[in-house]
Amino acid sequence: MTGRTRRYEKRYDDLLGLFANEAAFTEIARTRGAEIAYRVDEFRPSDRAGDVIFGTSMLYPGRVGDEFIFTRGHIHAVSDRPEIYFCQSGHGVMLMELADGTIRTEEMTPNSVVYVAPHWIHRSVNVGTEPLVTLFCYPADAGQDYDIIASAGGMRDLIVDDGSGGWTRIPNPRYRPRVTGSGAA
Amino acid sequence: MTGRTRRYEKRYDDLLGLFANEAAFTEIARTRGAEIAYRVDEFRPSDRAGDVIFGTSMLYPGRVGDEFIFTRGHIHAVSDRPEIYFCQSGHGVMLMELADGTIRTEEMTPNSVVYVAPHWIHRSVNVGTEPLVTLFCYPADAGQDYDIIASAGGMRDLIVDDGSGGWTRIPNPRYRPRVTGSGAA
Repeated sequence: MTGRTRRYEKRYDDLLGLFANEAAFTEIARTRGAEIAYRVDEFRPSDRAGDVIFGTSMLYPGRVGDEFIFTRGHIHAVSDRPEIYFCQSGHGVMLMELADGTIRTEEMTPNSVVYVAPHWIHRSVNVGTEPLVTLFCYPADAGQDYDIIASAGGMRDLIVDDGSGGWTRIPNPRYRPRVTGSGAA
Repeated sequence: MTGRTRRYEKRYDDLLGLFANEAAFTEIARTRGAEIAYRVDEFRPSDRAGDVIFGTSMLYPGRVGDEFIFTRGHIHAVSDRPEIYFCQSGHGVMLMELADGTIRTEEMTPNSVVYVAPHWIHRSVNVGTEPLVTLFCYPADAGQDYDIIASAGGMRDLIVDDGSGGWTRIPNPRYRPRVTGSGAA
């Protein structure tokens, strides 16, 4: 993206610990650890409220065991800030989760827009065979919190190959529900 | 755009009075008045501060006399709100103007991002031969003020054919400078 203020890349080695099938990940990392899994270009004019950040993301296709490759995912540090994604090419799923484990998915196909409403943890998953190219924008004061996923052992569900050319959602065996709400011990 | 909340189209007939060469416009409108000049799809989740609006714009190529076709243009009603444009395809110019008549242009080519900083009036111009497709995002509470251009007789400069396949900027003969600043009579 011409005019970007930042580019970052995640290699397979950077994704250690994120996929359920650790043996499959180890095998991939052994031979392809330095390969780029995704690349993000962003344009961030400032961090002030009332400003906007825009960027593009290229998530290469891949699987770790049955699980489709995904971006690390986050919730906004200012959690009532939304994010809008636009799919430019490829086939993806936006996997969204509330702190209480409620899950929502939305399919991403070329020219579709997905709204990640305030308070939703979100991650892009490439369920296709081509790079998933998305554009995103969000309020400049939103910030990112990645730990909300890591501390729960991942997101509640995994997006996996359904064995017949599509994708499906299955429970993540490593998921530890967050303690939320006023009734929590 | 799949998932849009609104689409609007501007036809040549809707652009009456915006181009400097009125005779040329009348001739075009006579035969092609119902033709679509540009189409905007937008996704507007809300109008609240902290939310974001995203959309796509398709501006077909064309000229009125020597002047390249453009979108109507606006300043944000909450004038310190910025806007980010991303060029998906085509060749354009973002024409920007401050209330005091200061002008800035930025070229739009595929995969480039243009930042319209707070307080800049802005308009997209298609200086190419293909549709200019841009994506835009801005804070949901920004609003639009179109009258700031109309009341000054247009923007200060016109973007015109330079006679050798490119574009150039010339003064708009109908422009009436705005009365701005504390020293104004």
